[in-house]
Amino acid sequence: MFTYILDEDTELRPLEPAHARHIYQLIDQSRSYLRQWLSWVDATTSVQASEDYVRAALTQSMENGGFTAGIWYKDQLAGIIGFHEINWNHRTVGIGYWLGENYQGHGLVTSALRVMVDYALLELNLHRVEVRCATGNKRSRAVPERLGFILEGIIRETELLPSGYVDHAVYGMLQQEWKLKR
Amino acid sequence: MFTYILDEDTELRPLEPAHARHIYQLIDQSRSYLRQWLSWVDATTSVQASEDYVRAALTQSMENGGFTAGIWYKDQLAGIIGFHEINWNHRTVGIGYWLGENYQGHGLVTSALRVMVDYALLELNLHRVEVRCATGNKRSRAVPERLGFILEGIIRETELLPSGYVDHAVYGMLQQEWKLKR
Amino acid sequence: MFTYILDEDTELRPLEPAHARHIYQLIDQSRSYLRQWLSWVDATTSVQASEDYVRAALTQSMENGGFTAGIWYKDQLAGIIGFHEINWNHRTVGIGYWLGENYQGHGLVTSALRVMVDYALLELNLHRVEVRCATGNKRSRAVPERLGFILEGIIRETELLPSGYVDHAVYGMLQQEWKLKR
Amino acid sequence: MFTYILDEDTELRPLEPAHARHIYQLIDQSRSYLRQWLSWVDATTSVQASEDYVRAALTQSMENGGFTAGIWYKDQLAGIIGFHEINWNHRTVGIGYWLGENYQGHGLVTSALRVMVDYALLELNLHRVEVRCATGNKRSRAVPERLGFILEGIIRETELLPSGYVDHAVYGMLQQEWKLKR
Amino acid sequence: MFTYILDEDTELRPLEPAHARHIYQLIDQSRSYLRQWLSWVDATTSVQASEDYVRAALTQSMENGGFTAGIWYKDQLAGIIGFHEINWNHRTVGIGYWLGENYQGHGLVTSALRVMVDYALLELNLHRVEVRCATGNKRSRAVPERLGFILEGIIRETELLPSGYVDHAVYGMLQQEWKLKR
Amino acid sequence: MFTYILDEDTELRPLEPAHARHIYQLIDQSRSYLRQWLSWVDATTSVQASEDYVRAALTQSMENGGFTAGIWYKDQLAGIIGFHEINWNHRTVGIGYWLGENYQGHGLVTSALRVMVDYALLELNLHRVEVRCATGNKRSRAVPERLGFILEGIIRETELLPSGYVDHAVYGMLQQEWKLKR
Repeated sequence: MFTYILDEDTELRPLEPAHARHIYQLIDQSRSYLRQWLSWVDATTSVQASEDYVRAALTQSMENGGFTAGIWYKDQLAGIIGFHEINWNHRTVGIGYWLGENYQGHGLVTSALRVMVDYALLELNLHRVEVRCATGNKRSRAVPERLGFILEGIIRETELLPSGYVDHAVYGMLQQEWKLKR
Repeated sequence: MFTYILDEDTELRPLEPAHARHIYQLIDQSRSYLRQWLSWVDATTSVQASEDYVRAALTQSMENGGFTAGIWYKDQLAGIIGFHEINWNHRTVGIGYWLGENYQGHGLVTSALRVMVDYALLELNLHRVEVRCATGNKRSRAVPERLGFILEGIIRETELLPSGYVDHAVYGMLQQEWKLKR
Repeated sequence: MFTYILDEDTELRPLEPAHARHIYQLIDQSRSYLRQWLSWVDATTSVQASEDYVRAALTQSMENGGFTAGIWYKDQLAGIIGFHEINWNHRTVGIGYWLGENYQGHGLVTSALRVMVDYALLELNLHRVEVRCATGNKRSRAVPERLGFILEGIIRETELLPSGYVDHAVYGMLQQEWKLKR
Repeated sequence: MFTYILDEDTELRPLEPAHARHIYQLIDQSRSYLRQWLSWVDATTSVQASEDYVRAALTQSMENGGFTAGIWYKDQLAGIIGFHEINWNHRTVGIGYWLGENYQGHGLVTSALRVMVDYALLELNLHRVEVRCATGNKRSRAVPERLGFILEGIIRETELLPSGYVDHAVYGMLQQEWKLKR
Repeated sequence: MFTYILDEDTELRPLEPAHARHIYQLIDQSRSYLRQWLSWVDATTSVQASEDYVRAALTQSMENGGFTAGIWYKDQLAGIIGFHEINWNHRTVGIGYWLGENYQGHGLVTSALRVMVDYALLELNLHRVEVRCATGNKRSRAVPERLGFILEGIIRETELLPSGYVDHAVYGMLQQEWKLKR
Repeated sequence: MFTYILDEDTELRPLEPAHARHIYQLIDQSRSYLRQWLSWVDATTSVQASEDYVRAALTQSMENGGFTAGIWYKDQLAGIIGFHEINWNHRTVGIGYWLGENYQGHGLVTSALRVMVDYALLELNLHRVEVRCATGNKRSRAVPERLGFILEGIIRETELLPSGYVDHAVYGMLQQEWKLKR
């Protein structure tokens, strides 16, 4: 029911259990595409699995103060973006995202990430936001690069995908840097 | 961050922990007004109490499938509206609400309740929505009456307020009735 | 082992896990009769289901200060009566009951309810007791009416039975009224 | 509310939270007497402590299938008797009891224990009941001896009382033995 | 990884989940031997069951301050020895142990028990250690007897083995006695 | 009681609650030194705080399959080393450590880390071990460098110390690399 308008075609909507079936369909439509970069695709074999995911995300996010949202494009679910667990002691957080194959190329994630970083660094007053992408995932890496994140390191063989281990590019954005960019 | 636009001045925003301080201020500004009809006002003695309330509401609502939202008017928190626990066996739910003293008279709760009933009976496909008001609370009773709810009974001395026991007027709206009204 | 004597033939005995098999048999003997008015009959397909029910009732009642009891007639389990969750803030409670088909007509529930209301309003010092019956369930409605409860409302289509939605007649008894009746 | 009649003056009543104040008073009246043999007397410094005890006993007993009861004499709480945790694998259970100083000498515990052993070995079909008493506590030891329990051992320095360590006399009764005695 | 050297061939190693498969194999190799005296052998039908046991033992021991260890002989798991729940109020604890059939006759349990008693009575400063053996289990009883434990009683028919009920010999060792022996 | 011998003066001993007082003393002796690099030093104001830490570490480690150990030098507690939460999906783990001021300069952490990496990559068969140090903490950084870890990135302003935000140097070691080094 709730929404955040990104532009006339695009909105963020906070996950709710009723979205599970949209999530499952989006995954199911582009399995071979998504499993290149997402380790959990093969384990998502039913709407129930997506509903479990939604409930886990809601519980984690709500207890911790963050949230996970669907990226909706022309009233279709196009992808997911969300905060990982906020570290309130050090005031840092990671953000993760993915997009269905047919929704690439419209800058959807870039607009979504911009708004999430605003929320994290300006609303929640966090100090640092981190995005990690597999090094070979060019499209994913382009998003933080476009927003001016700094590449801080290449963490080697830290994620196991169906195709084998991949390295992570770690991108960071600090609160003071983000304020200067606006 | 998320919102549901009611009109150009008014929005619903789902509760989040960061709202606790707005809730506490709204209560604190009109304690003598609110305690006439709300039993928990005197126990709300700190922002922490409001934050505990937010977390309990988030946990309950999210596990159960409903939600609680702030009613925001001209970017100020004006009141709260939310689903009680949904009974999924019988597909029924109650809705509760309250408004700060200075925000009366703009029809804010009426617009908010209309949207909540839409969500319950059309989105969630529930069968029945119930609203209960203290019989002496004229303003509160006017809201379901304006939307066409049926007065189904007067439950005697069922709520203990600082001023003593009050009766509850019970209003009901069924899915088939609501569809006809639209 | 424990008991409350209602008359020479009739006792209340607090539920214990060993009663599960008697409960299941009583339900199983009069399924078609009971499912007219009880939504959970069809889901009670084994002694284990009844034992789960007993444990849930014991846990709820004991934590909350109420209890659930079997109505025993000539040493046979005839039915069940119990407190719903006590609202200690407002000092109100609901009571529910049902009787096997073969035990109708002896006034068993009326004597049992009288004792439960005594306990709630005089021992526990509650302010209000509520009983809700499907409007079409004449026998069930006769019980609070016989004890002088007031009919306070007809809550429409609030319970889903195998035969469809039914209305609830809500009966209330206040502490001060009950004291006058004794 | 519920009861088990032992004789015209004496009943067992299952513990309920409302009994906490009677328990506390009974302990408080004979502290110096009770602390000779009960290690927890000095820690029972308020009605709240007794209420916590009642809730813990209810939770443990109910989950496990046993119970704890007050021994009531002429409508006064005289003492407590209860099952320890039942071992359902081996079908064994211990029973513990204590009596206020002014209620000694009426055989109250003996009648109560007899009924508890009946319940354990005949109703619950357990194989063995055990009673443990400090070796110096003559009155307490007389109870299982009077009922024909067998002294099976003296467990040395196993309980720390305010006066120092004491030995335990362990008494056992088997199902087949109890059946012969009746 | 961690160890306590008993002699050049023998060590104690605290249980860890990775040991589950060694435990299961040891049980599986001598089922008919072990089930004579251990009630849980028949229920141990998979490595998973042993892993569940390890996790339960770790949780219990760690919360309570004791531990359970494997007895390793020439780098093979030979048996298990561990503390039961420590009673910190009375400063008493029980110790249990078992050995695979092929590892009998090397005094492994005697050395292990000696070290456990040292830890309990000297490190943890407990007052009393107890060992219980089925009366017919000569090998098991020889262990506490060799270390000077006192036989304090014969608890009748208290454990149900596949072959029927057995009596327990209870052996006790007090802190002051142990200090004299060293 | 259990140990892992590093050399004739140095051992690892798995944490147990009885170590809490040694941990507290070690922290309390070199507060001004430790708070340069450890964010939790100021919050460790009592032995109880250290005991809470031990129990939390035991619970986390044991459930997850890792452990935390004290580094003991000449029978004195010199520091702590432990596994962070193991990611069993990707088979990666972090290791953290600290040493009291007076125990620097003996290579204690280097020997301890070597053994922990052996355990992680060879016993637990993990794929990757990670160590993170504040960039300004030369002594801490020297440890993974001495063992051949690769510096993979500098994560900016990610930890808040009493003196302000610091950057993290991230060091990684892969299983295949470690096997080559041995």
